[in-house]
Amino acid sequence: MGVVEENLDLIKRGSDELLVESELVDRLKSGRPLRIKAGFDPTAPDLHLGHTVLINKLRHFQELGHHVMFLIGDFTGMIGDPTGKNATRPPLTREQILDNARTYQEQVFKILDPEKTEICFNSTWFEPIGAAGMIKLAALHTVARMLERDDFAKRYAANQPIAIHEFLYPLCQGYDSVAMRADIELGGTDQKFNLLVGRELQKHYGQPPQCVLMMPLLEGLDGVNKMSKSLGNYVGINEPPREIFGKLMSVSDELMWRYFDLLSFRAIEEIGRMRKEVADGRNPRDIKVMLAQEIVARFHGQSAAVDALADFEARFRQGAIPDDVAEAAIALGGVATMGIVQVLKQSGLTASTSEAMRMIEQGGVRIDGARVEDKNLQLAPGPAFVVQVGKRKFARITLH
Amino acid sequence: MGVVEENLDLIKRGSDELLVESELVDRLKSGRPLRIKAGFDPTAPDLHLGHTVLINKLRHFQELGHHVMFLIGDFTGMIGDPTGKNATRPPLTREQILDNARTYQEQVFKILDPEKTEICFNSTWFEPIGAAGMIKLAALHTVARMLERDDFAKRYAANQPIAIHEFLYPLCQGYDSVAMRADIELGGTDQKFNLLVGRELQKHYGQPPQCVLMMPLLEGLDGVNKMSKSLGNYVGINEPPREIFGKLMSVSDELMWRYFDLLSFRAIEEIGRMRKEVADGRNPRDIKVMLAQEIVARFHGQSAAVDALADFEARFRQGAIPDDVAEAAIALGGVATMGIVQVLKQSGLTASTSEAMRMIEQGGVRIDGARVEDKNLQLAPGPAFVVQVGKRKFARITLH
Repeated sequence: MGVVEENLDLIKRGSDELLVESELVDRLKSGRPLRIKAGFDPTAPDLHLGHTVLINKLRHFQELGHHVMFLIGDFTGMIGDPTGKNATRPPLTREQILDNARTYQEQVFKILDPEKTEICFNSTWFEPIGAAGMIKLAALHTVARMLERDDFAKRYAANQPIAIHEFLYPLCQGYDSVAMRADIELGGTDQKFNLLVGRELQKHYGQPPQCVLMMPLLEGLDGVNKMSKSLGNYVGINEPPREIFGKLMSVSDELMWRYFDLLSFRAIEEIGRMRKEVADGRNPRDIKVMLAQEIVARFHGQSAAVDALADFEARFRQGAIPDDVAEAAIALGGVATMGIVQVLKQSGLTASTSEAMRMIEQGGVRIDGARVEDKNLQLAPGPAFVVQVGKRKFARITLH
Repeated sequence: MGVVEENLDLIKRGSDELLVESELVDRLKSGRPLRIKAGFDPTAPDLHLGHTVLINKLRHFQELGHHVMFLIGDFTGMIGDPTGKNATRPPLTREQILDNARTYQEQVFKILDPEKTEICFNSTWFEPIGAAGMIKLAALHTVARMLERDDFAKRYAANQPIAIHEFLYPLCQGYDSVAMRADIELGGTDQKFNLLVGRELQKHYGQPPQCVLMMPLLEGLDGVNKMSKSLGNYVGINEPPREIFGKLMSVSDELMWRYFDLLSFRAIEEIGRMRKEVADGRNPRDIKVMLAQEIVARFHGQSAAVDALADFEARFRQGAIPDDVAEAAIALGGVATMGIVQVLKQSGLTASTSEAMRMIEQGGVRIDGARVEDKNLQLAPGPAFVVQVGKRKFARITLH
């Protein structure tokens, strides 16, 4: 396999779609460092692993010697939600934007090489073009073509309002590519339309059109929905090492391979070998540990990864109790004993008595490390004891 | 009739539609000078009477003591046709815009009182708002509402492209009203949608919405099509007095009354009296002379109007020959005489022999003032003679 083909393999790893591959091959063959663009919204600087899929891909390009341009969309950020309908998106001040940008950089430089990363702000080119420039930009696209965009088409058909400025954002994104002379733009699969607008505008301005590399949306810990804060199925990159480690150890074996593709920097061949080993009988848990360690190390350093593993092993392999277990005191209210099911519910370890019974039936409840077999087990007042439900829920309970 | 009602009568004279009359009445009752807005394109400073319909209406407002704002759309003029498709509309430089503005002023100040006219340029407020301001403006209207505009709806239905910036122009026009705090905007009937956008934007910006006064498009000399240079049915306000006078004398009696409404500053009552006189048998030509004189006087002064009338009377009433008759020499090519029909055709006085015969039959051809009755009249070489066809075509012809 030639160098260009090898590079292309790494570039395409985990991606959903590449347009246009033959054009990218030509550019790779040129040997010059390509200008790689990815745009980020300055309003949400608190990244989770879902956000890092694109950043990881930028890292791949850096490893191949290309020039990464990390674009912060401060121009549109300063506009905010101009309809005023979305109170959660007020216009940001320049200070807030710069603050957010710094937070962004701190986070992304855990993945990207700061020396090889150019941070760009699109106010740099949008402020000078003025109102007239915006009108000229708007002249480069038609209403009908814009209404072909999937989400616009649906909203228009459903008589849901589309404000005219929403037509301007894809053009702004496209003009970013012109101003940045992008060779390649990365984006989510949901960005396809906007990414292609960039190609068009570049042609209009006499530039070769950028290639477009679309990355999938990362599934959350549930393996079903996309990772998002609001769904609670996320791993924040600023979470404590033990949290990150534990969350990653909780994913299914299938999702683990997906995360390897999109989140790990291990070589494609190495991952291939690991797949084979698991197929031949190796415990996938060993592999999952490697993923969890790699991710923790990326955001918290190697020693944090070692500690997180040790802690995890202590808790879940050896049945040890973590240091910071919640305390619960339950009043018996005159009776002599309380059933384990009631204790589980009243301590909040299970949401209901039926869940408590199910967990006991499944062998998922331990008292001071010993599995509870009897749903009718009665507990009496006395010294505190540690109750564990499932892998990760603990409480130190006192009955009185 | 109260003062407000009288004022309203003058304001509505010749207009097509007033929105909203009750709001205008309230503002007139306030007694303060109202801010009257009319916008003009800086690309076509060569005005004809069709353009003056709006300007005349501004004059009415001046006569009623209101504040007239003559808006020159230099901002959009500097953008030109951003699609680049219309080569006839290149972007104008600031110097060209200012030149055009001066030409405009020279012409409109033949109608408007310069002391009571504020000349505005919309670059004054569009340059400061920048690209971000344009996006915010675009957020104030929806795509669906814009596509309701008649011409957009038709083009969209017919799959004719609508560039996105075309959606921005109505918003710019509306924002002009905000920036100018307009009480009333004048416009053509074809401008209704844009004029109403002004009302909406003013409401959004916390201003009382402007009233909108729509003037009809003036019919050209043919009485059918709207007056336009390209149709040749126009009277340019910079044409020589005799041209203006002659063209206006050529309009139909019906169109004359329309022109009185839209172009004359004579009082409504006076025009009413003249209508009655004509109904009672007075020659409408006398009335037409008064219109032609008023218009010539407006653009060339009173003495030019007197001269134009004298010239017209001399030519058409007394059959006199104008001073600057075209010369034509026709070679007989060996034959002794030439028929009048051939002479008319070869001199270019008629387009064809059939037209020549028809004109003779209708009694419309004279030689040295004497009507030609015989289509077979033969003419021989000799001294020049003046041939007249219809009212206004003359040639001094020599046969040799």
